[in-house]
Amino acid sequence: MAPPVINLARKLDQFSEQWTPKVIAQLGDYQLKLAKLAGEFVWHRHPDTEEGFLVLDGLLQIDFRDQSRTLRAGELCIVPRGVEHKPVATAETHVLLLVREGTVNTGDAPENLLTNDSDQWI
Amino acid sequence: MAPPVINLARKLDQFSEQWTPKVIAQLGDYQLKLAKLAGEFVWHRHPDTEEGFLVLDGLLQIDFRDQSRTLRAGELCIVPRGVEHKPVATAETHVLLLVREGTVNTGDAPENLLTNDSDQWI
Repeated sequence: MAPPVINLARKLDQFSEQWTPKVIAQLGDYQLKLAKLAGEFVWHRHPDTEEGFLVLDGLLQIDFRDQSRTLRAGELCIVPRGVEHKPVATAETHVLLLVREGTVNTGDAPENLLTNDSDQWI
Repeated sequence: MAPPVINLARKLDQFSEQWTPKVIAQLGDYQLKLAKLAGEFVWHRHPDTEEGFLVLDGLLQIDFRDQSRTLRAGELCIVPRGVEHKPVATAETHVLLLVREGTVNTGDAPENLLTNDSDQWI
């Protein structure tokens, strides 16, 4: 059976909430998620997974404790396991995330208003 | 230490060969690869990995035994493990691939002129 074609723009049209990654695909124990980011997230780390950010639209700053990185559309950054980081987006930015299944968006930070279910499929 | 920003267009500028996926990042045992596809590939399957195709530029047809799928830029298809498929691109098409480390591009097909080293980093 032929698998479906997943159109990223159409998937992004299906939600408007920010900082709520939505799963669109899974490969092994890694998931691809779409997210809309705006404003400043919390400092956190993921002890059990790398986190890949591919910017689809907008501008994403990822703060690390020593310096910041800025990603434009078509740019990718892989945050290694256990490395503290804080995403920041001045205007709404759309990203494709790649993380291990079950990864909570706020990582090891105490549960807060930004923490949400890690396994919401769209 | 802040990880690097990987610009997909600049990475694509670094090679011109077709059907030779280049690794640009790794998360767990999965790798992200860039490839330039043109013409018709061989029928094959990957018994040990899903294969994700995200089209960055161009038009990719993936033939399955029962039907074909056509992917435009911004569209993604996950070929399940063990499912026979054949990528076809009428004009050169650029894709971001997601496969398990060590995956040979021609899968279970007999080694042929299109088969190449699975671990070429750029």
